[in-house]
Amino acid sequence: MSDTANTPAVDGRLDADIRDLAAVRDPDHSGWTREVFSEPYRESRELIAAKMRAAGLDVSTDGAGNIVGVLHGSRPSAPALVTGSHTDTVSGGGRFDGTVGVLGGIELARRLRESGTRLTRDLVVVDFLGEESNDYGLSCLGSRALAGELTASDLDRRDVDGVRLGDRYAGFGLDPSRALQAGWLRSRKLHAYVELHVEQGPVLETKGIPIGVVTAITGIERLLATFVGRPDHAGARPMNDRRDAMAAAAHAVLDVQRTGCGAPVHGVATTTRLTSSPTSPNVVPGRVQMRAEMRSVDADWLSGARRRLAEDILNHARGEGVDVTFEWSTDNEITETSAAVHDIVARSADENGLPWTPVPSGATHDAVHLARLCPMGMIFVPSLGGRSHCPEEWTDTAEIEAGVQVLTTTVRKLDRLDGVA
Amino acid sequence: MSDTANTPAVDGRLDADIRDLAAVRDPDHSGWTREVFSEPYRESRELIAAKMRAAGLDVSTDGAGNIVGVLHGSRPSAPALVTGSHTDTVSGGGRFDGTVGVLGGIELARRLRESGTRLTRDLVVVDFLGEESNDYGLSCLGSRALAGELTASDLDRRDVDGVRLGDRYAGFGLDPSRALQAGWLRSRKLHAYVELHVEQGPVLETKGIPIGVVTAITGIERLLATFVGRPDHAGARPMNDRRDAMAAAAHAVLDVQRTGCGAPVHGVATTTRLTSSPTSPNVVPGRVQMRAEMRSVDADWLSGARRRLAEDILNHARGEGVDVTFEWSTDNEITETSAAVHDIVARSADENGLPWTPVPSGATHDAVHLARLCPMGMIFVPSLGGRSHCPEEWTDTAEIEAGVQVLTTTVRKLDRLDGVA
Repeated sequence: MSDTANTPAVDGRLDADIRDLAAVRDPDHSGWTREVFSEPYRESRELIAAKMRAAGLDVSTDGAGNIVGVLHGSRPSAPALVTGSHTDTVSGGGRFDGTVGVLGGIELARRLRESGTRLTRDLVVVDFLGEESNDYGLSCLGSRALAGELTASDLDRRDVDGVRLGDRYAGFGLDPSRALQAGWLRSRKLHAYVELHVEQGPVLETKGIPIGVVTAITGIERLLATFVGRPDHAGARPMNDRRDAMAAAAHAVLDVQRTGCGAPVHGVATTTRLTSSPTSPNVVPGRVQMRAEMRSVDADWLSGARRRLAEDILNHARGEGVDVTFEWSTDNEITETSAAVHDIVARSADENGLPWTPVPSGATHDAVHLARLCPMGMIFVPSLGGRSHCPEEWTDTAEIEAGVQVLTTTVRKLDRLDGVA
Repeated sequence: MSDTANTPAVDGRLDADIRDLAAVRDPDHSGWTREVFSEPYRESRELIAAKMRAAGLDVSTDGAGNIVGVLHGSRPSAPALVTGSHTDTVSGGGRFDGTVGVLGGIELARRLRESGTRLTRDLVVVDFLGEESNDYGLSCLGSRALAGELTASDLDRRDVDGVRLGDRYAGFGLDPSRALQAGWLRSRKLHAYVELHVEQGPVLETKGIPIGVVTAITGIERLLATFVGRPDHAGARPMNDRRDAMAAAAHAVLDVQRTGCGAPVHGVATTTRLTSSPTSPNVVPGRVQMRAEMRSVDADWLSGARRRLAEDILNHARGEGVDVTFEWSTDNEITETSAAVHDIVARSADENGLPWTPVPSGATHDAVHLARLCPMGMIFVPSLGGRSHCPEEWTDTAEIEAGVQVLTTTVRKLDRLDGVA
């Protein structure tokens, strides 16, 4: 049997999966909202566990809070193959970000069983806990924990209501101390990790190519800039005697934009939020906080841009008589995919007759953390209009089926390799 | 007895009044916070009523919710003299904005009694309800109602929690339907209104002059601009394919600032708040609301600036591929003070040996609404560093005493006039 001899798609099955999952959403938010630790998220995880069981997977919740489904191979001691993604969403998000990788992994398992294939290795399909960034400023909770990158001080972080992250775990029925122990992935050897995901950008659609083979996942530098001027009466204080924190922040927003526009291909910079105080309608804002981020797969550009941006913001703020402090944090280091996995994914696309192109990933993924544990690769399918993190997010089922096909071939190929170079 | 033969200041009395009132504040907010309808505000009104009674005033709460203290004159049928201000504050405000006019009015009554003066006319000292702009976008609740300018649809406005303004009145023990009936001021003739207030700007301090005689109160044009772009993934969407509402709003903030800087003396323009959504850290903001305002005592400049500002904002937004809608509202028309009252205040300052200068008021005041009912004037005393609407707001007691002295002389002079031209 060749690697491309997948059972053909069962009409409507993946469609029904996507519809079932889309039906679970927070009614108090727009779009498809299943935020980590919320009730809709609990429900979506139960749905995924049920679908995994129906697909013949051996299902459990690991210490990190991930839903783990295992399709047992013929040689249990062999390093396992892992795939998966997440089913949580941003507030007001869409139906495909993350879900495609989880449902695609389950569909992969079904296809292997239906084609009568028994892999040598265990195939582990994971619905990772809380991939999207949350109120604690921490993304990829489940995959981060598996990589041993979740710390006790992370669990002590508090949200705006003062609730500890660890207590959120407990409230969701998870033991936070177990999340620190890295769990099952540390206790067994892994062969490779491959994640199927929607591109969330316009490259594939623009080029008319169905498969993206991911080259690297961007590093993210996050900035919290605090502008401190002087609150004054907005009517009585003359223009030439103001220290207007809002004006300084407005310059900074445009500085961020200019920095992103000066980036090489796939470098971006975004101001995601401004918060000002006082908020009275008659007061010149004395304090503004700005949240911004920069991403690139080019480490040199990223560090240079960070330095230039800080200088520009500082100079503009001085011109307004406003002080500014910077808190930078590196949310993700730039993560290259495994060259060996990249080549196998590309060959799998070729063998299925599906055109592919190398693409960087501007979004971060659970794959970043899995890359600490084993060779990692990602398969992208197109996003309509490049839209994501919004209700308009869309990928045709046929496009997802194509991605599952490449994933299935890739997994067959990887299963046969003794080791991934 | 001459008009300047005021009883000299009783040492520490006004100081104690200011301290007593400053002790009543919301412990959950910074500075001196007594927002309308709050518990601390209820307490401050009880304190004012008690101080009025101790000063020999006949105290009641009128239908509009104002605390009214009457010092009866010898001819009750004569049109009354009115003074006063407010004791509510902005969140995180100071100790002097408004309180100086209420406590100054009570001190005026004490001085008249202590000097054995009985005015011909009733002197009415008012602590007006809710002068500061509130969550309903409505300032000067009490004086607005007295001028018949509070409408039933105003009472139907809802705050962010969906609570009707009328229900806030009821929750505070006030009958909202009575507030629409304009109350006592309509049922009796008024002779003149004079309000003592802190300048809230730097002109008097900069010039080293103790008394400002107000020429006019600025008109306020308020703008709510809504920028609608497209929410996109902040990592995956290239810079040249964004419709970033935050970038468009940042240009607008700088447009507002430029407009204010191009104004003649005492024209100002301020962005007081930006609110963006989605607020997720990984999303290009698709929607931003901007609140801004422009003020001037020059009607021609104000209407021209409003037109030019809208054009600038629109052009910049188009450049970002962002749509923008404008909601303008005129919060106050430009209000000139009465020339006759202006002259009497100026003469009173002269007779007390206190230098004075004409000043416009950049802030709005209850005086705007009282000007609909009778000739109106205002007396300003200096603000340290021009600061206001912040905890650093400061005016020395001696400076307030000087203002009370001018107010007392002014009231004596006005009392004797048959009519104010």
